Amino acid sequence: MKDKSLESIGEFGLIDIIKKKFNSKNNDSLIIGIGDDAAVISKSKDDYFLISSDMLVEGIHFDLTYHPLKHLGYKSVTTNISDIYSMNGFANQITINLGLSNRFSLNAIEEFYKGVKIACEEYNIDLVGGDTTSSKTGLIISVSAIGNVLKNKLTLRKTAKKNDIICVSGDLGRSYIGLQILEREKSVFLTNPEMQPELSNYSDSIEKQLKPKARKDLIEKLSEFNIIPNSMIDISDGLASDLIHLSVQSNLGVKIYEEKLPILKSTILTANELNLNPTTCALNGGEDYELLFSVNEKDYNMLKDNDIDITSIGYFTSNKKCNLVSKEGATIGLKAQGWKHF
Amino acid sequence: MKDKSLESIGEFGLIDIIKKKFNSKNNDSLIIGIGDDAAVISKSKDDYFLISSDMLVEGIHFDLTYHPLKHLGYKSVTTNISDIYSMNGFANQITINLGLSNRFSLNAIEEFYKGVKIACEEYNIDLVGGDTTSSKTGLIISVSAIGNVLKNKLTLRKTAKKNDIICVSGDLGRSYIGLQILEREKSVFLTNPEMQPELSNYSDSIEKQLKPKARKDLIEKLSEFNIIPNSMIDISDGLASDLIHLSVQSNLGVKIYEEKLPILKSTILTANELNLNPTTCALNGGEDYELLFSVNEKDYNMLKDNDIDITSIGYFTSNKKCNLVSKEGATIGLKAQGWKHF
Repeated sequence: MKDKSLESIGEFGLIDIIKKKFNSKNNDSLIIGIGDDAAVISKSKDDYFLISSDMLVEGIHFDLTYHPLKHLGYKSVTTNISDIYSMNGFANQITINLGLSNRFSLNAIEEFYKGVKIACEEYNIDLVGGDTTSSKTGLIISVSAIGNVLKNKLTLRKTAKKNDIICVSGDLGRSYIGLQILEREKSVFLTNPEMQPELSNYSDSIEKQLKPKARKDLIEKLSEFNIIPNSMIDISDGLASDLIHLSVQSNLGVKIYEEKLPILKSTILTANELNLNPTTCALNGGEDYELLFSVNEKDYNMLKDNDIDITSIGYFTSNKKCNLVSKEGATIGLKAQGWKHF
Repeated sequence: MKDKSLESIGEFGLIDIIKKKFNSKNNDSLIIGIGDDAAVISKSKDDYFLISSDMLVEGIHFDLTYHPLKHLGYKSVTTNISDIYSMNGFANQITINLGLSNRFSLNAIEEFYKGVKIACEEYNIDLVGGDTTSSKTGLIISVSAIGNVLKNKLTLRKTAKKNDIICVSGDLGRSYIGLQILEREKSVFLTNPEMQPELSNYSDSIEKQLKPKARKDLIEKLSEFNIIPNSMIDISDGLASDLIHLSVQSNLGVKIYEEKLPILKSTILTANELNLNPTTCALNGGEDYELLFSVNEKDYNMLKDNDIDITSIGYFTSNKKCNLVSKEGATIGLKAQGWKHF
């Protein structure tokens, strides 16, 4: 068999290959392994442990020319615990492994951990371990997040129901717009180092890119109203990709409506300025770290009546097609766009 | 204050700085955070959850010119779960984050995961998640290991008792010798690519370097004989460094005897061939992944009477000095030699 390049397989293809190799179970304490936002492990009579892990690499996931290390420390935590909240659980601990080249000083590392500490306090979690080692080039950050969820509240990707209403927290596309602004100002600066970056008009989107929050508040609200979604995922790769994960794993289709997508006016204005389509930014931009979930109509009405920060964007269908209905009424197929790093 | 370089602080210094920043607790489920081989988290009435995390970087921790990817996959697992066994617990799951440059093919990645799978089956654990991303240069492997331990069996670094007998499993210095042989043959090959590497005489030490085992078997034996050590650590940085960790954290000293150090005859012969002092290899070579622990005399006698693969090398003292008594009777202070990567 011809050896394949990683580029031709892509991230999701590689995950599928690994998942298939490890589909048999060696240890009874495993409940759910590879394939959801976090693995599920037996804990006690009432609840499960959750564990999730991610790696951020300089030059691929972040650019230190405009990403302050303190914000990066914060983001390393929030983007990881987001995977615990998306199982309808709560994060409790994190470990951080750092690979550092010798260009980093102690002050730089302390800045990074200041951001980690702010996130730990804000989300009521502890840094409990990790490793620091040198790397030949740049900064590598690997985080594992640990949490727990009551057994009856565990929410998976694969359990969406037909006619479920698809909801998303917050707004979409803003983080991607922030990234484009930062990249634009960087290239302006590289061309003419005397130019000062012009960022004040874009602070909302830049903050979302550099220092995104995890939606613990939504999980608390769901708990307060005793609502257990039928399915949930956090939006890291982009609405389209993550919606397709829910659909494929639940063996259903989705129909969502362009006019319903929650996009801030400031995101639309900046997208226009950058000659980008705001809907494309919302669908494929990624790094929103909002929660995408599905509930039945009764639960949706309860959330709506209580002013929770969510928007319904469509529903699950029994046919397996994933479609967007455009503002003009055209039906357009959604396409997954995982990170294509390789 | 002048900013310090990481090189001047060293790995252990940096860990201390981070540990101090995170010494207050945000979440009640944390039992023990940074500072031992694994963090301890509340689980159920009878047992604790353990988590440990490590990062391996190409060019720093391994060299793919002589480290087959399958062995590297195996080693990535065993060196991490070793930290769970050293808490007197059992490993149950791992997550692996990989950073890959585009020079790696699918076949290469599959070789790596073949080794991971062999280790998973051998140690009765499951790969439950992780992340694959691209890296700009080389291979980065970040592993988290999860396990559990009965509350009454949890064994820490900081609880050694005065007069405890210090024991070590297996033998020491062999992995370091294996590394030296591999490095020698690599440089011969680089000078003259037509030379075939001469490795058959050194297979024991090379295997220990490329494919080390974790000492789950010893934890099972301790359990079988109902022996709970007073302190334990796994030897990753070298006997001297890891013994100093036990001493400092237990607020005691140690006296160990050169003549008692378990060093294989083949290790001594190869060390001599390489003009290395076998005792130095045993003290500071590192990567042995043997268990270093302390027990009272009664428990030690029980282990000795039952032919368990351990050696007593000395004892804990109330004065806080860490000394080696040489074969000639001289007393020599032990020095920590953590990895100095930066």
